[in-house]
Order: sequence, then structure tokens, then C-alpha cells
Amino acid sequence: MCKRALQYPQVETPPPQPFLKSLKNTLNEILFADDPFGKIRNESKTSKKIELGLRHVFPILEWARGYNLDYLKSDVISGITIASLAIPQGISYAQLANLPPILGLYSSFVPPMVYAIMGSSKDLAVGTVAVASLLTAAMLGKEVSAVENPKLYLHLAFTSTFFAGLMQTCLGLLRLGFLVEILSHAAIIGFMAGAATVVCLQQLKGLLGLSHFTHSTDVVSVLRSIFSQSPVWRWESGLLGCCFLFFLPITKYISKKRPKLFWISAMAPLVSVIFGSLFVYFLHAQFHGIQIIGELEKGINPPSITHLVFTSPYVMLALKTGIITGVLALAEGIAVGRSFAMYKNYNIDGNKEMIAFGMMNIFGSFSSCYLTTGPFSRSAVNYNASCKTAVSNVVMAVAVAVTLLFLTPLFFYTPLVVLSSIIIAAMLGLVDYEAAMNLWRLDKFDFFVCLSAFLGVVFGTIEIGLILSVGISVLRLLLFVGRPKIYVMGNIQNTEPYRNIEQYPQATTLSSIIILHIDGPIYFANSSYLRDRIGRWIDEEEEKLRKSEENSLQYIILDLSAVGNIDTSGIRMLEEVNKILGRRDLKLVIANPGAELMKKLSKSKFPETIGKDWIHLTVAEAVSACDFVLHTAKPDSPEKISREPEFNNV
Amino acid sequence: MCKRALQYPQVETPPPQPFLKSLKNTLNEILFADDPFGKIRNESKTSKKIELGLRHVFPILEWARGYNLDYLKSDVISGITIASLAIPQGISYAQLANLPPILGLYSSFVPPMVYAIMGSSKDLAVGTVAVASLLTAAMLGKEVSAVENPKLYLHLAFTSTFFAGLMQTCLGLLRLGFLVEILSHAAIIGFMAGAATVVCLQQLKGLLGLSHFTHSTDVVSVLRSIFSQSPVWRWESGLLGCCFLFFLPITKYISKKRPKLFWISAMAPLVSVIFGSLFVYFLHAQFHGIQIIGELEKGINPPSITHLVFTSPYVMLALKTGIITGVLALAEGIAVGRSFAMYKNYNIDGNKEMIAFGMMNIFGSFSSCYLTTGPFSRSAVNYNASCKTAVSNVVMAVAVAVTLLFLTPLFFYTPLVVLSSIIIAAMLGLVDYEAAMNLWRLDKFDFFVCLSAFLGVVFGTIEIGLILSVGISVLRLLLFVGRPKIYVMGNIQNTEPYRNIEQYPQATTLSSIIILHIDGPIYFANSSYLRDRIGRWIDEEEEKLRKSEENSLQYIILDLSAVGNIDTSGIRMLEEVNKILGRRDLKLVIANPGAELMKKLSKSKFPETIGKDWIHLTVAEAVSACDFVLHTAKPDSPEKISREPEFNNV
Repeated sequence: MCKRALQYPQVETPPPQPFLKSLKNTLNEILFADDPFGKIRNESKTSKKIELGLRHVFPILEWARGYNLDYLKSDVISGITIASLAIPQGISYAQLANLPPILGLYSSFVPPMVYAIMGSSKDLAVGTVAVASLLTAAMLGKEVSAVENPKLYLHLAFTSTFFAGLMQTCLGLLRLGFLVEILSHAAIIGFMAGAATVVCLQQLKGLLGLSHFTHSTDVVSVLRSIFSQSPVWRWESGLLGCCFLFFLPITKYISKKRPKLFWISAMAPLVSVIFGSLFVYFLHAQFHGIQIIGELEKGINPPSITHLVFTSPYVMLALKTGIITGVLALAEGIAVGRSFAMYKNYNIDGNKEMIAFGMMNIFGSFSSCYLTTGPFSRSAVNYNASCKTAVSNVVMAVAVAVTLLFLTPLFFYTPLVVLSSIIIAAMLGLVDYEAAMNLWRLDKFDFFVCLSAFLGVVFGTIEIGLILSVGISVLRLLLFVGRPKIYVMGNIQNTEPYRNIEQYPQATTLSSIIILHIDGPIYFANSSYLRDRIGRWIDEEEEKLRKSEENSLQYIILDLSAVGNIDTSGIRMLEEVNKILGRRDLKLVIANPGAELMKKLSKSKFPETIGKDWIHLTVAEAVSACDFVLHTAKPDSPEKISREPEFNNV
Repeated sequence: MCKRALQYPQVETPPPQPFLKSLKNTLNEILFADDPFGKIRNESKTSKKIELGLRHVFPILEWARGYNLDYLKSDVISGITIASLAIPQGISYAQLANLPPILGLYSSFVPPMVYAIMGSSKDLAVGTVAVASLLTAAMLGKEVSAVENPKLYLHLAFTSTFFAGLMQTCLGLLRLGFLVEILSHAAIIGFMAGAATVVCLQQLKGLLGLSHFTHSTDVVSVLRSIFSQSPVWRWESGLLGCCFLFFLPITKYISKKRPKLFWISAMAPLVSVIFGSLFVYFLHAQFHGIQIIGELEKGINPPSITHLVFTSPYVMLALKTGIITGVLALAEGIAVGRSFAMYKNYNIDGNKEMIAFGMMNIFGSFSSCYLTTGPFSRSAVNYNASCKTAVSNVVMAVAVAVTLLFLTPLFFYTPLVVLSSIIIAAMLGLVDYEAAMNLWRLDKFDFFVCLSAFLGVVFGTIEIGLILSVGISVLRLLLFVGRPKIYVMGNIQNTEPYRNIEQYPQATTLSSIIILHIDGPIYFANSSYLRDRIGRWIDEEEEKLRKSEENSLQYIILDLSAVGNIDTSGIRMLEEVNKILGRRDLKLVIANPGAELMKKLSKSKFPETIGKDWIHLTVAEAVSACDFVLHTAKPDSPEKISREPEFNNV
């Protein structure tokens, strides 16, 4: 009946696969997309396999062989540089987490050592981060006061670090690293800017020398808390802080202008600490409203494994805190590792990194450390100082250990306001105004995700911002599937392809035939919509044709090129559409269904329902098949009649 | 440099739209996909507009004009038929909900009246349903005992009905009807089968004449409760039940075989009730272990508006119950309405239906009714009895009202075991074994969704089944976006198109060029995956070429035909891929980006980055452009060199 169409190549159904094999392939694609064991599998000798396996788990075995003196020189320089940043930052962030300052130093000793053995990044510098520290304080502080019950608070911090590490390791072992991808680029920009704002606001406490402060992190509560205490603001503290807040950004600016002078901004925090401490020491400023760190314990990390709290009601709090801070730390660490790997053109295995982060946090929680990851600032300094391998982390750890053993008394006079200034200066770089503007320009929805993350963090809590941005991002994915675009296609003159007539206004449509392109998968979430929308396109087209008194509509070609998958609701929808069209005396024609579609459609006998000849490889072929019938069959001719039973039977 | 490519039509960027206009279009497509106000908008006169508006809100104004005596005859017959089903079913389901049996009759009086005015389906018969009844009992029963505190329980049932109606109306008014689509066809099959199993198990209480029974609905608790009471099983009750359980399916079988005899199965429940009642009355069976309904109040629905409970702690319970049962009832009612509308070839507006359902439940909650919707069984009988309009609902309501006013004493001797038998017989039809098998055949994942809904309901609770199936369905959508398929394309001999080589094994690939097709949108959730996966395809291809000592790989063509949308993470990914390829001395070529893609890519200057000449309308053109460069430019010729700076600059 439609012989011309038969000359074209047929649309094929891919060869059937046994269920278990296709399940295995699917799971492989979801969980082992990067084929991590490819090399090991291809190796025949067992001893070699074990060696490759060990190297896979401990990347140090990979790079330690080729290690040489040149590398060591670079690593020692960068290691010492990051140590000079790590010490003041560690103390500052520990204060942000309402933990004893010494914990910041402990956390720069054990975790970097673990990472050096298991991590696969060459540039990542391990340490604590501001946002996770603040989040720990906010979440634990809601139920346990760090002031009234410091011991329990401390132990809960270790426990939540343990859970964070455990979760990170499990995610890595279960190959669920992709879950971290739920934090989109846009969400992270907004979230970071919000967190930076909140952290800066928190620092006003140190800057103004206040001793009481709200536990909330939102801008309204913080500002209210600050202005209600205006009588006890200490101008001395504020003035000193402003000096450092002036000094630190200038060093950053210099380093940015001249990348060779990276060490100026890297050293600036330590220099600030030294100057601040000397200032207090010589002027006895501690008696004039400048708060100081005071005594720090000497000695390296004491064990804390016995302090982990696994009894209710606190274990759930620690678990929740651990999971949320752990995911956040993971997202930051992996993003940082990936960025630098891209610069140097090597690969990072996300799942392997997770296991490394997890192990360093588990061991950290056993040795008085709290949550660590790969902070951006420290890693950037490490990279700029031309580190070569993870040995720079070891050097940093040794430098911190030396400090812990011999130099802690030097920090007695360090003013808190210097630490606040260091944090504020570090945070300013996290508010990426330009990136947000770029989002607005490129993709309004991404900007909206970014904005809601920011506002959620600033006016709500960090968790609200996080949930909001993830929720909206996921909603977008669902919306994409729930409301796929359908557009009319037209022929681009003198060429074969048919394209969207909105994108190519010069493309010409045909009378009697409407070609609809569905731009997404056909799933339960959109099948009702698609059915209604196809109906509306046809109504509109018929209305138009009636007005212009042209030929009436006869064929609906559905271009399924972009329909990646279909489920049973989708198949039912196609069958319904076919029935509805049949009643309206229209013929449904299918163009270019993909492999997955053909597999399912042929199982459902859909090709037999609409007639196998009405499924074509390209839109052009479908059109010419329709044209053939239209022009050989005059109205009421036998040809026309012979076409009818086909869709009256269904 | 690539002149041949320039002869082809260019890929175009659609004309820019003002932000607000495109936002409006998007929202329109999401919320007003069916263009409900199209007619009203096109009308110029205000009076006509108001008339159309009223007709839109009250479909009765639409069909009442053309109403005639023939219609009335059909409607009276079908109305009486469904009333004969409604009375015993109403009493049974009310018992299932642990509510006084009379409520089942009340609920078949007011709601059908409201629906007749506002509903747009011609075939839907309004009434209570088993699953929602059971769910009400399960959810309310968890916190308030229907036996110990029947008054509070009753008032909470009214309140949850009110909230269900309120939510349904709001969903309709806010045009959020599409949210119901989250329940996929597969989930509903599994859920219904599970609910039917659970409901049948619950009926064992009535069948065995037990007076104590577990509040749990899972199969383990129910069976344990039944077998622990084996000494008090009443064989008389069981025997009577079995008789009816034999009679009812037989009538169904007859009606199925001969559709003309539909009234046999429709009348069967009423006949069972009459026979059962006569049996008890004459044999005084109530003294021999057969439980009976007992006294039913006379008179139509008393007002219950003052009984609604809006005080904590119970208001939250009622709200939660209302929302969950309301969504479920809505999903069933709309699906039923749609199915019958499809048979008769008319349209149903989901949002309008929601408002109608919502209003009937709100008015119902004011007049001693509990949750109603459009049950499948009753609507099917209505349809079979050739109803013409919603007047059949009015007839049913009047028949029920007459029963309430004069005939309730007749139900005094009705044995509970008959009601249990009626419910079991109705439930058996809901276990759609064949449909589940069909799911397995067509789509394993859908079968998995169905199975998890079933197992969740049977071994957990109804809510667990619901959450599980919705969760897994949504996960599937996310997985589609998170792991889009990428496949290699080859040329189908003697034709232009390039297709998936897995689907078309005869398609030939080219040396030096690899063509990758991405089958889904590029979003944050998949951009890391896509980057890694593209890298792996290239590695594999290079490995293959190295083994066969063919030409080395030079071009990567990405066919973006099926990429419906992209976000900023996706754009970054493409830029990264371009950089990585540049470092490996490979050239990235893009084929057929759609409207949305071109809009965003051109804003991000991506076309300039890879060179505008390297974006083509079809894969075939991209290939011939690459071929042109490959064959005119010998290695190390000026042409080759001139190509290089392009990707070293980025």
C-alpha cells in the first residue's frame, strides 16, 4: 500500500538481550561509569592483579616510585607555605565551630597524613573549612551548648566527624559518588556566597569584642543581637580588626596582580598573627578590651576514640550533623580536587577520593580532629607554590606537629580579632558576584537556584538554603521530564532535514501533514500532558487549515528522535493517541524511534497496531511516504478506503 | 578554512525573547497546557464572556440545554442500577473505615448532587472507595480508637474529608493537577493489587465473625491476629460468607461473558443483602454467631459543619489523613473519568475535575459524609447501564435519600458477613495479574515499581507502599537525567542519516572521526558523568585504532539533536571537554544543537570558542566538513597547522 516507503532502510529493533545482562550493563553504567577496574581486569597474572589493586587503593604506591629530589624541594616549599596558612586558619575555624582552638591544629596533623597515602589528587591541601565548621556549630549548638557543656559538645563533634567519615567511605565503596552531583554549580555559588555572608556576620562578635552572641545564623537574629549590645562594643578591638581587614585584602590583591608573589598572601595570615600577638604582648592590650586566645595545650593529638558517643539521644544528633556536614565537605573537596586536576590534566576518581576523605575523617575522629576536607583557599596556595605530590601535605603535617610540640606558647597573646579578620578576608573571595551575574545571563533558572540558596542561608539557616537549592534543582530535572517541549517541524529549503520552525523561521511546513517533535523521554509524568498537547497542536492546525480553506489535515508525523526512553504509561499514551487520531480520521506516522523505544514498542505490538510501514527512519522518508499516498490516492478512491480499515480496527 | 561547510545552511539561534515573555510562556506551558480559557479569551463581548465563564465552572449549564427525555430514560435506569450497588457498598466501606454504616449512605446523597452540577464527566458515579476508607481507618486509628472514642473518631473523619476537599480544590484552582501524574500507571497497578489484598485480609474479621482485630494492615499482623483467635472462629459466619463469595463472582462472570446482562452483576450485591437479611430474619441467625448491622438511624444527612475539629493536637492528624487520602481519591477519580471519556471520545479537564471533587468533599464534610470520589466499579456499572449525563448521579442520590428516609429499618438484619463478601468480591477484580505480567514483559523497571508498591502495601503499610512506589518512579526520572545514554553513530549505507550502531549493526563507522550521540538533557546531575563517559569513548576508540594501526583519531562529533536543554553546569562541561580534547590534539565538532541549546551556547560564547564553522546542522554535514579538512590537509601541511591555534587558544 505504501511501496515507496519500503525502498528505504527499515527502522530496526536492536537484538534482544537477556534480562540479567542488560541489568548488569545498566548498573555498570550507573555505578561504574568510569570503569575503575578496567586495567585490573585486563591483567592476566594474579600477582600483577594484586599489585594493581593495591595501587588502586593506595595511590601513594603509584607515585612514590618516580619521586625524586626536585619534587621534594617543591613539596617542602609548598608544604611550609600551606602550614603557615593552616595554623591561623585552623585556630580560627575551630573557634567558628565553638571548639577549643587547639583542635584546628590537631586537624591539620593526622588527616593530611592519611590523605597523602590514599588520596589521588596532587594539589589538594587537607584542612578544616569555614562552612562545615559553622554548620557543625549551628547543628550541634541547637541541642547542646558549647559553653555550658563543653565536654559533651566536644565529644559530639568527634562523633559527628566519625559518622561523616563513615558515610563518605560508604558512599565511595558503594560507588554512590554521583549523589554528590546533586549539588549543582549554581547551587554551590549561591550557597557559598550565603555561607560566606553568614560567617562574616558571625565574625562581628570577635571584631566588636562581644562575649554573648546569638546561636542563630540568620542575618536578622545576628544583626539584632549585635545592635542590642551596642553599649558593650569595644572600639579597641574594632580598630585593630579594621587594620588587619585592610592589610589582608591588599596582600591578596598584590598576589593576584603578580602570581609570582603568591607567597605574600599565603604568608599574610601568619604575619598578621605574629604582629597581632606582638602588639598585645608589648602594649598589654589584653587589659584594654582585646580578647586573646590564652593557653594552648602542648603536645600532639591525644587519642579520642573512647570519647565517641554512641548512646541515645545524642547519637542521632551526631549522625544527622555528620551526614550533612560530611556531604557538604565532600562536595567541596571533590570539586576542588577536580578543578586542579583539570588544570594539570590528570584524572581524579570521585569514588576513590570519597574513600580517602572518609578514612581521613574516621582516623581524625580517633585522634581529636574534627571534620576536614580539601579547602579551596589552602589548595590554591598549594598549587601556586608549585607542589608536585601529596608530600606537601606531609610536610604541612610535620610543620604543624612541630608547632604543637614546641610553639603553642607563642599563641598565648594572639588576639581573637586577628582570627576574625583572617576569616572575613578568606570569606570575601567566596562571594562570587560575577559568577552569579553570569548565571542570570546564561540561564535564569540556574540564577534562581543560586539566589534561593543564598537567601535561604542568609535569612533562614544553612540547612534551609541547602534543602531549598537541592529541591529546586531536582524540581527542574522533574520539570524537564514532566513538560517536554513539543514543536512543529518544517523542511529547510533544498535540504533533507526537518527542523524546529521556531529555530529556523525559514523552514516550510506542509499542508495535510503536521510534523511534531517530542523533545524528551515519554514517561508517566508527562504522558497525560503529551496526549493533551498533541491534541491541541492538531486542533490549532485544523483551525488554521479551515480558515485558509486549504486541504484538511491527514497525517500526524511524530518525530521521536529525541525520545530517549519510554515506560508503560508512555506506550499506553501512544496507543491512546493513535485511537483518538483514528476517530478523527487522521493517520499517525512515527519517525526515527531509537533503540530503547523500538525494543519496548515492538514488545507492545505497537508497530503492528499502526502498521509497520508507518514507522520510518527519518522525517523526510515519513513525509515522502505520506505524500505518495496523498498524491496517488484521490479522495474516495480505493486507495483512500484501503487506508482506513487500518486505524478503524484498533 | 573550512569552506565546504559554509555552503550548508547554518545552525540558527532563535530570536531572543524578553525574559518576562519567555517566563510567561513557560508558566503557561506548565500550568495551562490545556488552554482552558482559550474560548473565553477569543470571545469579544463581556456578557458572552461571563456566560462562557459560568459554563466553564458549572458544566451543567453546558449539557442541561440539550437534555431530553431519551437521555432521562437512560439516566433513570442507570441511576437506579448504581443505587442498588451503592447502598450495600456504601455500608460495607463505611465499616471498613470503622465508621457508622449509615455514613456510607449519607455519602451517596450529597456528594453526587454536587458533582452533577460541577463535574465534567458523563459517566463517573460518585461514591466512597475501599482503599481510601481503609486508609482513613489506618491513619486515624493509629492515634484515636474508633471503639473507645467513636465521637472524636467520627469528627476527625469529617475534618479529614474537609481537608481532602480543600486540598483538591486548591490543587485545581492553582492548576497543579499535574501533580497527580506522579502516580504512574505501574505504581497504581501494584498499589491497587496490594490494597485489594489488604482489604480482603481485613474482611476475614467479618467472615470469621471475630470481634477483636489488629489495627495494623500488614499481612503478618493480620494473619497472626486471625490465627491467634482460631478458637473463637464462627463456622456459621464463615459458611454463609462462602456462599456469597461463590454467588458474587459467578454473576460477575456472567456479566463479563454477556455484556448485555451487566445488570446481573450490578444487582448481585443488593440481592445478596436481601437474601442475607431474609436468612437472618427467618432463622434468627443473629443468635448463632452471625453478626448483623443492627439499628440504622432514619432520616437524611444531619449537618456536621459544627463537628469539624480545628484544635491541636488532632488537627494535624486530620490534615495529614486528608491530604494523603485526598490525593489517592483524586488519582483514582481522575483516572476513571479519563478512561470512560476516552471510550466515548470527549475530553475531561483534570483541573476542573479536581475542583468538582474538592467541592463535593467540602460540602460532604458539612453534611455527615466522608471521603468520596469516582470509584471504578460503580462508574463501570453506570457506563454499562448506558448513562447519558451526570443526571444518573442525581437519580442515585434520590434513590439513596428515599432509602434513608423510609427503608433503613430493612437493613436491621443484614449480616455483616454479606458486606464482607461484597467487598472481597469487588476487590478481586482489582488484582490485575495480567497487567503486572505485561509490565514485566514491556518494562522491567515499571514492574519493579509495581512490585515495590504491592510489597510495600502488603508487608508494610499503605503509606509505605505509596511512598515507595512514588519514590522509585521519581528516582527513575532522575536516573534518566542523571545517566543519559551516549552511543556511537555510524552511517547507514547509501543514505544520509547517521544512527546508533547498536540499533543498526550494519551502520559503518569512520576512521579518524568518532560520532557520539547524547540522549538526554545536559544538566548538573549528569555533566560529570558525561565528561567522564565521553573521555572513555575516546580512550576506547584510540585504543582500538592503535591496535589496528589505522589512522589516529582526529575529530569528535557530538550529535546534540536529542539534548533538549542545558544548564550552566552543562555549558561548563562542554567547555571542559573542549579543553581536554584540545590538549589531546583532537577537535570537537557539534551537530544539530536545538533552539534552547543554541540560545544558551551563543550567550556563553561557546560557538566562538570552538569556531562557528564547527557547528553543523546535521551529522552528515559535520562529517563532510571534517573529511574535507582531513583530505585536503596532509599531516604537517599548513592547513593542519592552521587548524591548531583554534583549540590551543582556549
